[in-house]
Amino acid sequence: MNIGIVGLGLIGGSLGLDLRQVGFKVLGVSRHQHTCELAIARGVADDASVAFSLLAAADIVFICTPIASIVPTVKIIIPHLSPATILTDVGSVKTPVVEAITPIWSNFVGGHPMAGTTQSGIDAAQRQLFAGRPYVLTPVASTLPASLQTLCEIARSLQARVYHCSPSDHDRAVALISHLPVMVSASLIDACMVDPAVLKLVQQLASSGFRDTSRVGGGNPELGLMMAQYNRPELLRSLHNYRHSLDQMISHIQQEDWTALARILQQTQLARSQFTDFE
Amino acid sequence: MNIGIVGLGLIGGSLGLDLRQVGFKVLGVSRHQHTCELAIARGVADDASVAFSLLAAADIVFICTPIASIVPTVKIIIPHLSPATILTDVGSVKTPVVEAITPIWSNFVGGHPMAGTTQSGIDAAQRQLFAGRPYVLTPVASTLPASLQTLCEIARSLQARVYHCSPSDHDRAVALISHLPVMVSASLIDACMVDPAVLKLVQQLASSGFRDTSRVGGGNPELGLMMAQYNRPELLRSLHNYRHSLDQMISHIQQEDWTALARILQQTQLARSQFTDFE
Repeated sequence: MNIGIVGLGLIGGSLGLDLRQVGFKVLGVSRHQHTCELAIARGVADDASVAFSLLAAADIVFICTPIASIVPTVKIIIPHLSPATILTDVGSVKTPVVEAITPIWSNFVGGHPMAGTTQSGIDAAQRQLFAGRPYVLTPVASTLPASLQTLCEIARSLQARVYHCSPSDHDRAVALISHLPVMVSASLIDACMVDPAVLKLVQQLASSGFRDTSRVGGGNPELGLMMAQYNRPELLRSLHNYRHSLDQMISHIQQEDWTALARILQQTQLARSQFTDFE
Repeated sequence: MNIGIVGLGLIGGSLGLDLRQVGFKVLGVSRHQHTCELAIARGVADDASVAFSLLAAADIVFICTPIASIVPTVKIIIPHLSPATILTDVGSVKTPVVEAITPIWSNFVGGHPMAGTTQSGIDAAQRQLFAGRPYVLTPVASTLPASLQTLCEIARSLQARVYHCSPSDHDRAVALISHLPVMVSASLIDACMVDPAVLKLVQQLASSGFRDTSRVGGGNPELGLMMAQYNRPELLRSLHNYRHSLDQMISHIQQEDWTALARILQQTQLARSQFTDFE
């Protein structure tokens, strides 16, 4: 089976390395000739080209561009695809992508391999990037069961933990566990800056608690902006839930209702222990 | 010079180990005879007793009890102290402690060694716990300069980074970098629980971003409660600052003011890079 990969960065490049390893023939497409040459030299792809015509031989095509380019890329490659080709993507927000592509290529299954590093580009591509990580597939009513099954098996061959859900459930969940933390954490840093009288002391005394809570809020601004732009409705919903939780906590502290505050802190301690992927 | 330590848990025990190492004679006091025996056996103290009369020979006494017991303990030991004894404590909130003790023992200097582990008790005591960590001393107008100087030298002998500030500046700074993160982080966990439709997915997909941002909110509820009870005014002030930052961010996302959101995220990335103790 031939797998096309459009966009040979961290995700596309890492996919290529693993998919070749498990026996697929990988056809890579990049905008840059130099990246195509690197892809072949490093074992990311069996063949690579700047020309979309290479994808005519692909049974499945993974769109691995930045999220803003996914839909434009699909529109450009469609004339080159054979009619039975399964299309999928790796974007971190699913509803807008699935809604835009399904009408123009019915054999599309949205996907989101939740793996990454702080690096990007083909130089950051690595084997086993997806092993043990979630890989979410987001079928809709019109999705062909056989295509879903094929992508499911491919994701399992990467040793990923495969989940299925609707695009909107995906977007709601990643808003809560990925996009909301960025805004919560950035607001923490922002709030620490407003009091010039103690700013220097704050900088000197901050340690592991602040370090961890502020980490994602001090990350790449472009990623945070992308989350807000593409997952805006679900991010806003999660922010309103969050503000409600915060307001309750402030109210308990204001009213010195220590029983209620203790109950929340006991619940959050218990709740956190029920997450899958850590501790 | 003889140093008394009241409370031989993680902090008191670790202080004893290091202070003996640099040449002080350490006199330990615990409520439990067994802890006194362990303290001597493990090199935490040269002598240890459940009787406060042991402190009569101390030039300096460190109160290392939980914060709720600091002031009651000082009142109990005062009759046993020689008049020149320097008193200090290790509580994580300073204004209420300094205000309560200064009128009854003028030779008092509030202190806060900002070190710890998730463990507690004398079994958790360890050498070098304070090395490289902040140790804040909080003198007031009536503090004897010689006493401050003595404590400063002792803290430096632990290889701590020593800072001086007012009790209120200390409490404002720790509210921002230690107590606010707990409430921010607990509210994040709380907000993720309210949507039963995606709770299971949320638990399955959460990874490092959520893990780090939620860590301190999933910690010991008693510690969180203690912070709120003892540092309530400064914690509330920091929570209101925080809610203002959060509301601004929500407003930018609602209005799709991506320029303003990008500016905040760029500022928080830059601001986080200017903290002392990490990365």
